[in-house]
Amino acid sequence: MSPAAPAPAVSFGQPGDKHALESGTAFTPRFDADGLIPCIATDADTGEVVMFAWMNAAALAATIATRVAHYWSRSRRELWRKGDTSGNRQDVVEMRVDCDQDALWIRVRTAGDGANCHTGRHSCFYRMVALTGDAAAPPRLTFND
Amino acid sequence: MSPAAPAPAVSFGQPGDKHALESGTAFTPRFDADGLIPCIATDADTGEVVMFAWMNAAALAATIATRVAHYWSRSRRELWRKGDTSGNRQDVVEMRVDCDQDALWIRVRTAGDGANCHTGRHSCFYRMVALTGDAAAPPRLTFND
Repeated sequence: MSPAAPAPAVSFGQPGDKHALESGTAFTPRFDADGLIPCIATDADTGEVVMFAWMNAAALAATIATRVAHYWSRSRRELWRKGDTSGNRQDVVEMRVDCDQDALWIRVRTAGDGANCHTGRHSCFYRMVALTGDAAAPPRLTFND
Repeated sequence: MSPAAPAPAVSFGQPGDKHALESGTAFTPRFDADGLIPCIATDADTGEVVMFAWMNAAALAATIATRVAHYWSRSRRELWRKGDTSGNRQDVVEMRVDCDQDALWIRVRTAGDGANCHTGRHSCFYRMVALTGDAAAPPRLTFND
């Protein structure tokens, strides 16, 4: 974690054994070697996957404390409250964690014009990959919009 | 990538500049330093996020070629066609890629008893994280089921 990151408002416990991780009620998120955990954001109403990003402990703590999505920008190396610039704040309706507590899923409602992608689209996942079995024809992308 | 991984059946092009990545129709997935790309799997019918896992180039190529989800197991360090042991094969209905082509989303229908999680549940995300603003009360988990 960058020394510039603010101290978490909520502390997280140390991950336990496999049983505790998978069957317990203690939230002990497993951050990777860079101190990050992946987070999937879906539209709370439609279920569409709108974004995939990373949180460090400070971003996760701030998200839990404020119910507004905070992320860690790997390119800018800074804590990032989404919407501060764009107005497209993500209000978190629900947060889930996966079986081994190394991935998060948040269901969000997005303020402003509803864009979750920096390209102005509702979802970052605006292109489909052609599922072709033909090795001679590399898969192409098709725009949804 | 492990030397044991099979050669991809489909080759992927080198990522271009920001414009090409975000606005183009060439599928040029950006693998991380370990040769992996994150993949979100959702239930094609309900939209529920059922799994989060990783693909290397061979797993991604095999998924595209066969329309059955293949992953790279980071713990076992092997290519893994989900369902080979459990019978819970994931048939891929649609694949999407995000704006900067470093994350994938697949919509799947799951064979067998429909379990996507190794715990036997339909989704790995079977616990909710309490969104508490109280720093004195660490967030707890609640089971959905």
